[in-house]
Amino acid sequence: MTPQPSPITLQVDLGERSYPITIGQSLLSDPGLIARHVGQRAAIVTNTTVAPLYLDTLTRVLAGAGKQVTSIVLPDGEEEKNWASLMRVFDVLLAEKCDRKTTLVALGGGVIGDLTGFAAATYMRGVPFVQVPTTLLAQVDSSVGGKTGINHPLGKNMIGAFYQPQAVIADTATLDTLPPRELSAGLAEVIKHGAIIDAAFFNWIEENMGRLVARDADALAYAIRRSCEIKADVVRQDEREGGLRAILNFGHTFGHAIEAGLGYGQWLHGEAVGCGMVMAADLSERLGFIDAAATRRIRAVVEAAGLPVTAPDLGAERWLELMEVDKKNEGGQIKFILLRPLGSPVIMPVPADALRATLRACVG
Amino acid sequence: MTPQPSPITLQVDLGERSYPITIGQSLLSDPGLIARHVGQRAAIVTNTTVAPLYLDTLTRVLAGAGKQVTSIVLPDGEEEKNWASLMRVFDVLLAEKCDRKTTLVALGGGVIGDLTGFAAATYMRGVPFVQVPTTLLAQVDSSVGGKTGINHPLGKNMIGAFYQPQAVIADTATLDTLPPRELSAGLAEVIKHGAIIDAAFFNWIEENMGRLVARDADALAYAIRRSCEIKADVVRQDEREGGLRAILNFGHTFGHAIEAGLGYGQWLHGEAVGCGMVMAADLSERLGFIDAAATRRIRAVVEAAGLPVTAPDLGAERWLELMEVDKKNEGGQIKFILLRPLGSPVIMPVPADALRATLRACVG
Repeated sequence: MTPQPSPITLQVDLGERSYPITIGQSLLSDPGLIARHVGQRAAIVTNTTVAPLYLDTLTRVLAGAGKQVTSIVLPDGEEEKNWASLMRVFDVLLAEKCDRKTTLVALGGGVIGDLTGFAAATYMRGVPFVQVPTTLLAQVDSSVGGKTGINHPLGKNMIGAFYQPQAVIADTATLDTLPPRELSAGLAEVIKHGAIIDAAFFNWIEENMGRLVARDADALAYAIRRSCEIKADVVRQDEREGGLRAILNFGHTFGHAIEAGLGYGQWLHGEAVGCGMVMAADLSERLGFIDAAATRRIRAVVEAAGLPVTAPDLGAERWLELMEVDKKNEGGQIKFILLRPLGSPVIMPVPADALRATLRACVG
Repeated sequence: MTPQPSPITLQVDLGERSYPITIGQSLLSDPGLIARHVGQRAAIVTNTTVAPLYLDTLTRVLAGAGKQVTSIVLPDGEEEKNWASLMRVFDVLLAEKCDRKTTLVALGGGVIGDLTGFAAATYMRGVPFVQVPTTLLAQVDSSVGGKTGINHPLGKNMIGAFYQPQAVIADTATLDTLPPRELSAGLAEVIKHGAIIDAAFFNWIEENMGRLVARDADALAYAIRRSCEIKADVVRQDEREGGLRAILNFGHTFGHAIEAGLGYGQWLHGEAVGCGMVMAADLSERLGFIDAAATRRIRAVVEAAGLPVTAPDLGAERWLELMEVDKKNEGGQIKFILLRPLGSPVIMPVPADALRATLRACVG
């Protein structure tokens, strides 16, 4: 039996709201690790897909540590990240008389993490919560940084809060059960972190995409660690997205339009972001910020991750309309995160003709 | 024409979340005052009772200062402090493409202030907001301190956030249009501030209750100012209700049970708090913390304010059940805010027999 490498712990440095991210194999069943961050009462929020896989283990571990455990199992899917699901969480918490010291534990992917975090931010004006992400996307991105929220019929993540967890526990063993499409979706955010911040990491991703897609444990652990480091560093500098943090939305303005235009849940968030990064690269090239070779590299690595590179045909006017309600839209002017060059971000409005040319070029 | 006294400005000292409270006559129509705290876009949230009185004035003042103004008029009443009303706010903000820099302006009483504050806390993960309280209760209490939220069918204010406004503008002229019952409800919180913190202010309230009920402008201005000072000082020391701030819930454990037990909107919040303070005084006396004379004084001043002093008969078991879901309930033990003596608070669990005796004594 191969010895397991020790877990790695990073710190997200946010003053009194600082918290650790622990990354490693089989952390879910560690008898002391998660329990250390949970109070006397825990309410685990998960979904119908994840519950059969990990809910018993986590419940047993927490109960074994003497915690009183409640669990709430929601339907799975981005389309369930809505008010109705949030109310189900509140209904159970209130029916079971969970008090202000109850710790909510988010066991699942990005939808569960975002929704549970928002429930924690707003239940009795705020209770503690712990993120236990079980998808690659949640481990490399959504569980870190304190963005929580739900969708509104008119826009994704339109209702939410900045609210930091007590801890993030990323058990890489949970990725073994992840469907291939979801693995690819997580790789989109890994690629993003390289593209906007760290050209050397981008090179590493290109070289190791085969290992990542094949779920090589060491390669995945490194990708998660480096992604969390990059994201934690950006969040540390700009917790509430006053400026810099917006660079993490690279590919997301296009991506959100795809998700909203097709209806939430048709494309996975990571798939939309993957395609959105190809579109943002195309737009960066049109404005002379990167060369054609860089655009090709981004397209190739997105494709190698198993992600779509051709955008759905929503109609140019619908595309523009969808992008205008994006949260980055301030004062009525759409701002884009572009590459200038690969490995460095720039945030700016763009000429409408360049944007329309990108839509024409990228739509299938 | 009597010259108007200059407005008074207090500061709520919360570091980077500090904000001013301005109290005075006819501040709503001051061309520069409110506008100074509002960004380029404003969304005024108000209700069907307040809109005919003040919405035009405020809209004109803001538009005159060059702001783009949207208004959202909700139905009036505590029973409307719910998710459906909150969604109406989000629906309009999104339909009108209000961005992250839009300032929400709460024009109304406590329900509008709490709901608008929570909408501001959660719209796009947080936008600025300004409180323009138009009831005495909101001016002396709910607009100050950053508690925002909505009710859940299983409990009042169970969903919410701590979120501070940019400014509070208390125009005392708006009290001229306040129904007598609502004036009394506001006086409950004034009495509370004296009872828990400041025996000298309590004496002043006793002596001046006749002037307050008769809406003497100077007496009201002093009561609002002293209430805001006391509350701001408590909030400064304990913004997120880790300990001290709970003293502001004096009378509220009983009061919330009355509101929930009768159905929200049957008694006004201040009416329930008035009666709840009489009950908390009775309980304090039973435990030997105040003498019978102090209990009689509290009962007399609550009655003189036009508030109920006899509790509704919900049945002892229902009373206890309702108090157990109160937010102050941590770890399953009900804590009460009691007087020890009049002018000083103590927070503690109480023996069940004393509590039952108070219920028997105070229920009509």
